[in-house]
Amino acid sequence: MDKLDMACVEARCRWSGWKEKLCTAEEAASLIQDGMTVGMSGFTRAGEAKEVPKALAKRAVRDPLSITLMTGASLGNDLDRLLTDAKVLSRRMPFQVDATLRRAINAGEVMFIDQHLSETVELLRNRQLAEIDVAVVEACAITEEGGIVPTTSVGNSASYAILADKVIIELNLDSPTELEGLHDIYIPQMRPTRPPIPVVAPDSRIGTPWIPIDPAKIVAIVLTRGRESPSTVLPPDADTQRIADHLIRFFSDEVSTGRLAPSLLPLQAGIGTMANAVMSGLAEGPFEHLTMYSEVLQDSTFDLLDAGKLDFASGCSITLSEACGKRVWPRLDAYRDRLVLRPQELSNHPGIVRRLGIIAINTALEVDIYGNVNSTHVGGTKMMNGIGGSGDFARNAQLSIFVTKSVAKGGDLSSVVPFVSHVDHTEHDVDILVTEHGLADLRGLAPRERAVRVIEACADPLYRRELRRYFDEACRRGGHTPHCLEQALSWHVVAERDGHMRRLQEERQAEMPA
Amino acid sequence: MDKLDMACVEARCRWSGWKEKLCTAEEAASLIQDGMTVGMSGFTRAGEAKEVPKALAKRAVRDPLSITLMTGASLGNDLDRLLTDAKVLSRRMPFQVDATLRRAINAGEVMFIDQHLSETVELLRNRQLAEIDVAVVEACAITEEGGIVPTTSVGNSASYAILADKVIIELNLDSPTELEGLHDIYIPQMRPTRPPIPVVAPDSRIGTPWIPIDPAKIVAIVLTRGRESPSTVLPPDADTQRIADHLIRFFSDEVSTGRLAPSLLPLQAGIGTMANAVMSGLAEGPFEHLTMYSEVLQDSTFDLLDAGKLDFASGCSITLSEACGKRVWPRLDAYRDRLVLRPQELSNHPGIVRRLGIIAINTALEVDIYGNVNSTHVGGTKMMNGIGGSGDFARNAQLSIFVTKSVAKGGDLSSVVPFVSHVDHTEHDVDILVTEHGLADLRGLAPRERAVRVIEACADPLYRRELRRYFDEACRRGGHTPHCLEQALSWHVVAERDGHMRRLQEERQAEMPA
Repeated sequence: MDKLDMACVEARCRWSGWKEKLCTAEEAASLIQDGMTVGMSGFTRAGEAKEVPKALAKRAVRDPLSITLMTGASLGNDLDRLLTDAKVLSRRMPFQVDATLRRAINAGEVMFIDQHLSETVELLRNRQLAEIDVAVVEACAITEEGGIVPTTSVGNSASYAILADKVIIELNLDSPTELEGLHDIYIPQMRPTRPPIPVVAPDSRIGTPWIPIDPAKIVAIVLTRGRESPSTVLPPDADTQRIADHLIRFFSDEVSTGRLAPSLLPLQAGIGTMANAVMSGLAEGPFEHLTMYSEVLQDSTFDLLDAGKLDFASGCSITLSEACGKRVWPRLDAYRDRLVLRPQELSNHPGIVRRLGIIAINTALEVDIYGNVNSTHVGGTKMMNGIGGSGDFARNAQLSIFVTKSVAKGGDLSSVVPFVSHVDHTEHDVDILVTEHGLADLRGLAPRERAVRVIEACADPLYRRELRRYFDEACRRGGHTPHCLEQALSWHVVAERDGHMRRLQEERQAEMPA
Repeated sequence: MDKLDMACVEARCRWSGWKEKLCTAEEAASLIQDGMTVGMSGFTRAGEAKEVPKALAKRAVRDPLSITLMTGASLGNDLDRLLTDAKVLSRRMPFQVDATLRRAINAGEVMFIDQHLSETVELLRNRQLAEIDVAVVEACAITEEGGIVPTTSVGNSASYAILADKVIIELNLDSPTELEGLHDIYIPQMRPTRPPIPVVAPDSRIGTPWIPIDPAKIVAIVLTRGRESPSTVLPPDADTQRIADHLIRFFSDEVSTGRLAPSLLPLQAGIGTMANAVMSGLAEGPFEHLTMYSEVLQDSTFDLLDAGKLDFASGCSITLSEACGKRVWPRLDAYRDRLVLRPQELSNHPGIVRRLGIIAINTALEVDIYGNVNSTHVGGTKMMNGIGGSGDFARNAQLSIFVTKSVAKGGDLSSVVPFVSHVDHTEHDVDILVTEHGLADLRGLAPRERAVRVIEACADPLYRRELRRYFDEACRRGGHTPHCLEQALSWHVVAERDGHMRRLQEERQAEMPA
């Protein structure tokens, strides 16, 4: 380490014991043993420990080991791929987005536990999951008392570090020092004697700007460099823009009728292109003094902050595109008073979501005519990413909105089906469905009423006739939620066999009961 | 009215304006007009307004009208049957248990909106449902200021009375005057500036023992007599007892490992024979200083209170059998310090459930091998009762338990199926499944691991082989949650056609893909 580096490290490492713990990523990784449960930082490709997992993957090639890996959510820098390829992962929770890991999960090679993102540390604290042996957390600084200042995500890092026997810190010398002060770390007390968590607005600060741990648990400090993986969010296409437009019009109408104020309610938007487009659209509408109480803060958050439309944003991670990152990271100080990063247990807390009356906007993979939502399973069996925080928000939101394009694969698959092949969000938890064709307001409606709205407003015209036919026949058979059970999943069966749902009309004939 | 009655009424009616508002049930019912939205008291056949709905049904025979009826939950005294037969109900929410109404719902004649029971008044307050024109609330007393003291349930009565333009009070002269003081009425503030709701333990009292309304809204007071419909809960049979035994053993084990204290955690139990049996079983185990934070307080609550096992019970209604009622009602004072009745929005509040770390025990209609639960729809289409509070509790509980007998109809139907025909509770919200055959602890398991536990511990031996075969074949095809989609609902299709699932083996051959 040269002198300049040393000064830089000392400015970030204020805990006196740091020098004795300094080691290489390989040395740190050697503390992780076969069969261990490891909690790592990282949420939506932000703030993940970078070098120790790489070293672990490298070592596993010559010295096989497998672990249970818990994170906040997805990891950047291809770490889930590297760890999967090296066969390090036997169990993984609570979320992922990596193509290689996904293949291993769907092949049954990695046991994936898909959880509401607010629940993982609650389960750990109650000893309902295996205890964390080692926590690996990326930091931008270490305080005098050994407190960890996270980087661009908090995720589950705080509880992992607090609950683990041993803590490895990756001190990232490239992370902006201005991150310090942005975090608000608060750990709810044990139940049943937990007092109310005192978050009463998106800008509530209730904890410390660092993760308080016993520094005796710090077993290794690894100096790293390297930025986050940029977000892969695409710019809105024509359909995405139409979805955003429908939603902006809906919000405007709600403001006109007085059901919502021009400041709306604290906003949550799932990660991805569609939610990003909707959020960006808010810059155009008759809205002001908006706030966010969300999970991930994306490009749109900073667009709205810059436009003066958004007063405050609370999240548990920041994930930006290359371009937006170039704009935001160098002038982070300009946003300091309008941002907070919390543990995901708090950013997604069902009780706080209910208290604040969030507007939740999440993406569906497919929806059925009665308003049930599949967010996770392609064709009912293959995991895409995981439920993430959508369940934390949707059930307790004041307005629970799901968006999806009406078709996938250039029209080969309808996203509106008679019966979803997997349910992540039940009819009870979905207020509004939006596709590029329109918006279905399902509030206060019975299933038969909802079906008409969903088919006529949201389905692609290519599939509407067949959906109407299904619904009509189902209604003739009766029931509160009418179905023709022998045809209910036939759309998926046909798609699995033929790669598309277009031949449904003919299929149906063949499937009629004898 | 004779002198004695008059004295009795005056003791209960302390509001000075009452005499001018006194009228017959028929006169009061005439205030309800065609097309109105009416909010009535009543939760699990307890505390419902009795005479005005009867008069309304009578009038509708000669003077047809139809209304939207909202209640807390189910009504006693056959009111839902009377109102359905008189064609008074066009819309009904958020729960019911009546056979006649159920038929009308399933025929599509009554639009039924099946809601999480904590949500109805939240939606009303945000004007996301039609506004209440008239509230009809049973009271045991009216305070000096015109405050309403409810009878054996609070349900949604408080918000209905507060939000309605007009309030009709049925003063039930047979209701125990000792009910006064038992209720704790608290209405959460509007969002997004709602402070935390200060319930921190089952015995927290945070409101007033009456419903505070502007007495100018009281348009009618009807004097009534008549007790509650007794609960129809059956005594445990051999299977129910086995379910209870499995669960008591599980709790004992959790206490041994230190994961639970001998006082467990605040308990919630759904209504019905099975939950009642489990709760009664707790009297036998190594448990003490138990508490309940539940919806309905049933016979078992009072058995546990009498046994000195239960320190405190919080609910939103009391529903007792004939025998238990005879024991409890005359000596209500003896329980006064150990009971509270809250609005169902509070008894079921997701944030409070999460804060207290409830143990939630609810009944499933059917479960699938991956742990998804159907609580409401027979054969995927026909509404039984409604989701009730099960979703409020299950998602936020520290331990979410579902119980069901492994078969129905004397073995003709398996309650454990490959794919539930309707999802009310997703795999993410189910920790423990119990049938008479055993208990499956699903915590921290991936779907493929869960399936083995559910099949081997919970399914009836009669159906295990076929479930294993389905699962094995599905695993060969792959996926995080393996399925053979073309067979997934075949169990229900066969049952619908043949009345039983026994011929599954043969059916399967015919359904194999070409």
